[in-house]
Amino acid sequence: MQPTNKADVALAAGDKKKARRARFQRVFETMRDELIAHMTANHMPDEAVEWYRANLEYNVPGGKLNRGMSVPDSAEVILGRALTDDEYFKAALLGWMIELLQAFFLVSDDMMDDSTTRRGQPCWYRKDLGPNSAIAKVGNIAINDSFMLEGAIYHLLKKHFRAEPYYVDILELFQETTFQTEMGQLVDLITAPEDNVDLSRFNMDKYKFIVRYKTAYYSFYLPVALAMRMTGVPDTYTAAGAPFAPYETALKILIDIGEYFQVQDDFLDFHGTEAQIGKRGTDIVDNKCSWCVNTALGVVSPAQRKVLDEHYGRKNLQDHEEEAKHEREVKRLYGEIELPRLYREYEERIVGEIRKVVATVPVPEGAQGQGAVLRPEVFTVFLDKIVGRSK
Amino acid sequence: MQPTNKADVALAAGDKKKARRARFQRVFETMRDELIAHMTANHMPDEAVEWYRANLEYNVPGGKLNRGMSVPDSAEVILGRALTDDEYFKAALLGWMIELLQAFFLVSDDMMDDSTTRRGQPCWYRKDLGPNSAIAKVGNIAINDSFMLEGAIYHLLKKHFRAEPYYVDILELFQETTFQTEMGQLVDLITAPEDNVDLSRFNMDKYKFIVRYKTAYYSFYLPVALAMRMTGVPDTYTAAGAPFAPYETALKILIDIGEYFQVQDDFLDFHGTEAQIGKRGTDIVDNKCSWCVNTALGVVSPAQRKVLDEHYGRKNLQDHEEEAKHEREVKRLYGEIELPRLYREYEERIVGEIRKVVATVPVPEGAQGQGAVLRPEVFTVFLDKIVGRSK
Repeated sequence: MQPTNKADVALAAGDKKKARRARFQRVFETMRDELIAHMTANHMPDEAVEWYRANLEYNVPGGKLNRGMSVPDSAEVILGRALTDDEYFKAALLGWMIELLQAFFLVSDDMMDDSTTRRGQPCWYRKDLGPNSAIAKVGNIAINDSFMLEGAIYHLLKKHFRAEPYYVDILELFQETTFQTEMGQLVDLITAPEDNVDLSRFNMDKYKFIVRYKTAYYSFYLPVALAMRMTGVPDTYTAAGAPFAPYETALKILIDIGEYFQVQDDFLDFHGTEAQIGKRGTDIVDNKCSWCVNTALGVVSPAQRKVLDEHYGRKNLQDHEEEAKHEREVKRLYGEIELPRLYREYEERIVGEIRKVVATVPVPEGAQGQGAVLRPEVFTVFLDKIVGRSK
Repeated sequence: MQPTNKADVALAAGDKKKARRARFQRVFETMRDELIAHMTANHMPDEAVEWYRANLEYNVPGGKLNRGMSVPDSAEVILGRALTDDEYFKAALLGWMIELLQAFFLVSDDMMDDSTTRRGQPCWYRKDLGPNSAIAKVGNIAINDSFMLEGAIYHLLKKHFRAEPYYVDILELFQETTFQTEMGQLVDLITAPEDNVDLSRFNMDKYKFIVRYKTAYYSFYLPVALAMRMTGVPDTYTAAGAPFAPYETALKILIDIGEYFQVQDDFLDFHGTEAQIGKRGTDIVDNKCSWCVNTALGVVSPAQRKVLDEHYGRKNLQDHEEEAKHEREVKRLYGEIELPRLYREYEERIVGEIRKVVATVPVPEGAQGQGAVLRPEVFTVFLDKIVGRSK
């Protein structure tokens, strides 16, 4: 039955989105059961097996799943057709490995940042295990738990992909991306310690390093590169008579998209309303190395710099009014330097640059040409979701 | 010049040992410089590069290096000749990767165990950075630092071994061993939390799981398996007319050697004098899931079990005399059940079993036979160092 009016179309689209998520979720359950079975096969004591199950269930599936779901989505775009059940399972499994990687980062980041909640529940390391448990709360065991989220990736890769010609490529992709993310996290941690405000440590180069390494590689390049490997996109090929390097081009585009996405996030933290972004922005009081403060640092007069030095990163849990006063001063300064205009200029420039590189991606000729090749739509799908977003 | 008397021989042996260690140490410097160069090539900000250098230098090279050095040693035994400079470098580099893996475990274990010192200096996470540093101490940044020790392994493997036919094998060896060690650490952490003594959680099966997974795989199997892969020992071959599986056999032998080594450690913690083992044993007051207590649990009468329940794991930082009283009661009980005799019986049995499996390793025929094959000496070298040791 065809939907006949706007509401029906929206409903059908909503159902489709839900069904898509449900299909992806089912692969998590298979994956979790396989990991549990691996522990059992190794004769791990029961309480440790149950602990690992809780670790997986608490930390892996509860996020937005954008990263994970973009592996089957990208694979479908590359192949230009729906995936077979086997292709879907493989692509979704790779997607869940990105979610495992992210869970590894988030569980440990929360400990390093001393966070209290994540996705609306206590951070894993703060989780209370109840009066019947010999261990009162997860605590520092969460460090090893985070390792075991990472370790699962390579067990699954070996189990499901060892016979594939692209096995080594995806092994290396995960390893390199992991190392890059850790490099970004290191720079972030020592550049912006919450308890020691010193804006002279910030600059736009460091900001870009952190954004690219800590976020863009694993969130944007990794899912697409995995989809490209899985569908068999070769390292280089000839298109319209010229040699083309699809992974290099994808990297260039997606790292820029990742940077742009984070800059948006940072700008919305300052400029978005609570209704828009679903939370109050806290980057200013938290001394975050944000695009906003780094942009400001590049254009302020000496007098304005003093304002920043005096008011940025002044968290005050005892005196909320005092904290808000400092924050207002910084926001006033952001207005004075016309940060919204600077943001729009940045956006226009980066989106222009990204579209220019996307335009170099050759459009495959004919219905079933030379096997799997990259297509510009892989990137426009991302861009269309992101450009001009207000949440 | 030939050494002419016993003292000269000992001196020469000592010099040889020193030279051997110094040669191995030099490879660390090359490796560290390559890792630093990788960071610099990625335009990582200077203070983060220096932080990573400090992480490597503080945590990687200061141990006994037995695990690392046994890679070139085992390779030499397998090949039956001295290694070329290139072979030595590759074997030593693999050895240093085991030391990186161990550093990853130790830096994080120290945080999970709340330890204060390691190798005679403060644990990395407790290291004070001095009054001129923006960050007072390393603290929880050590979590990410431990990740970056692990991450280095795969960067180095790709850089130096990608073209080797055994590249995937050693990638998987590192990954599987890492996952196994993390599985052992999980069981250890939830079986013996220091602040909740409950001997009903202990048993010999769990003890063996912890020992094998947490220690034996990475300390004993990994170095030999790496040496076997590097020298080209095939997965199976025919020897004396029968098929032989060298990796399976090596695994069986080395996991047993690893178990035996840990049991020795545990027994010496109870029975060794301070002069012998260089420290006072603390397993009893620390509530450790040791071979001693697990053996006792298997043989005690109900009355003796009560003694264990009352006195095991009674750490008391406020009242040292009280703590020592509890410890004495447990030691008295260990005497009552003749633990030293049970240990000697265990030792005799396990060494007998190990030697029986070692005897199944075919001795290669002829001077240069069928390429690299396993030799029994690979294992007897380990055994001779361990059997009957008193420190």
